[in-house]
Amino acid sequence: MKLGGSIITDKGKPFTENRETIARLAREIHAARQKKDFDLVVGHGGGSYPHVPAMEFRTADGVINKKSYEGIAKVQDAAAKLNRIVVSELIGAGENAMSIQLSGCSVSENGRIKYMYVEPVNMLLDYHMIPVPYGDVGLDTKKGCCILSTEEILNYLTKAYMKDERHKVAKIIVCGRVDGVFTGNPDDNGDAKLIPKITPRNIDEVGDYLAGSSGIDVTGGMKHKVESMLELARMGIDSEIINATKPGIVEKALLGEKNIGTLITRE
Amino acid sequence: MKLGGSIITDKGKPFTENRETIARLAREIHAARQKKDFDLVVGHGGGSYPHVPAMEFRTADGVINKKSYEGIAKVQDAAAKLNRIVVSELIGAGENAMSIQLSGCSVSENGRIKYMYVEPVNMLLDYHMIPVPYGDVGLDTKKGCCILSTEEILNYLTKAYMKDERHKVAKIIVCGRVDGVFTGNPDDNGDAKLIPKITPRNIDEVGDYLAGSSGIDVTGGMKHKVESMLELARMGIDSEIINATKPGIVEKALLGEKNIGTLITRE
Repeated sequence: MKLGGSIITDKGKPFTENRETIARLAREIHAARQKKDFDLVVGHGGGSYPHVPAMEFRTADGVINKKSYEGIAKVQDAAAKLNRIVVSELIGAGENAMSIQLSGCSVSENGRIKYMYVEPVNMLLDYHMIPVPYGDVGLDTKKGCCILSTEEILNYLTKAYMKDERHKVAKIIVCGRVDGVFTGNPDDNGDAKLIPKITPRNIDEVGDYLAGSSGIDVTGGMKHKVESMLELARMGIDSEIINATKPGIVEKALLGEKNIGTLITRE
Repeated sequence: MKLGGSIITDKGKPFTENRETIARLAREIHAARQKKDFDLVVGHGGGSYPHVPAMEFRTADGVINKKSYEGIAKVQDAAAKLNRIVVSELIGAGENAMSIQLSGCSVSENGRIKYMYVEPVNMLLDYHMIPVPYGDVGLDTKKGCCILSTEEILNYLTKAYMKDERHKVAKIIVCGRVDGVFTGNPDDNGDAKLIPKITPRNIDEVGDYLAGSSGIDVTGGMKHKVESMLELARMGIDSEIINATKPGIVEKALLGEKNIGTLITRE
């Protein structure tokens, strides 16, 4: 599952985490795992933590000048600081969670993960522990550096595990600030309706809405995200976009309750 | 170089770092790198941070019961928390330092690193940045889990780079609390003398002293450490044990000044 940076940090305030929200999400994850036996990877975004140095040093653009190396160090530090808070809250809630730092276990090529050493993740899943990768700076063989989003990391892992029966991904849960994908921006438009299901059959129709929609994340390009989830859906991996700001929804999603967000599926 | 856990944390107090010492060491490292052009890996121990959970859950013994997984999570969290402080101080001093988390980029076998994905370390060195690996929990294919010491990590990297001209290790600097290896315990015995040089020729003689000496680290078994450094010395990699509690010594060691501790060398 992915915890969006926009719900675990305060977007308006640099280096400000939403500690209570993180603690509640950790409790919901633990409650679900007490009720049902399933493996889980919890990825999370960086929100307002790495955002400041990433903007200042234009880290996503690569190594563009001598200051870029300072940017790599500061983005990694900021992202890791937020990750410590998330992992500590998961441990506090009773989960055996462990950080997975992409900057130190992968290399990228033009902003996409080229290789990630996944054996530690495999072992943690075998131990029924929760690996916690997170949006991080990537060391990039073409651009020098890049920003690795949680989506990119979870997509890489999903594809890496596609043929691995032991760790095959059953579903991706994307936790954002609104109930799912809408026919318009729900903040601006009271008539915007939640789209319960996106499939290859209705994507063209939905795509028109998405172009003008803020969706779950104003910064990330919702259209691109939905298309990337649809790519996984075509391979048999469903995604579900839910509203994690509403208490109880994450637990319900983890327990498999239907119709609580937008499902992106094959049919 | 290795910063001992006993100098960067207060051994008597759990989860207490010596912030001023860490900041001073970071400044000395930066001062040396301003005066001379050299690549550097800074490893550090965990001291009183991971010590508490590592003892409670007997992490070094492996997965011995169901609570061991909680131990893996808590040792990783504690070690990573101290690492953030060290990396932040290095960044604050002007160095572009980046964490390397062994738990997430390596697997071990019976307490020794079996494989570590080193490409990110290579890239950081190419960028003239400082990779900062640290004593961590290891995921172990035989025992389930283990404790990876800074020595083990630096030894692995040294051997991995033995044939790599680009990143060949020139020297290992081990920063402890006393001036080097003594003929007895300098805390108890005013007559104990510093041994300036240990080589394959005088190791037998020195070995007799070591057996009864606390050396730089009461917990680690100085005899074993010196023997492991001597193994590297035979392959052409010198080690130097210095006293990092004395201001200026780390900078001098990095700049190559002679006779400031105990040198472990081939001849």
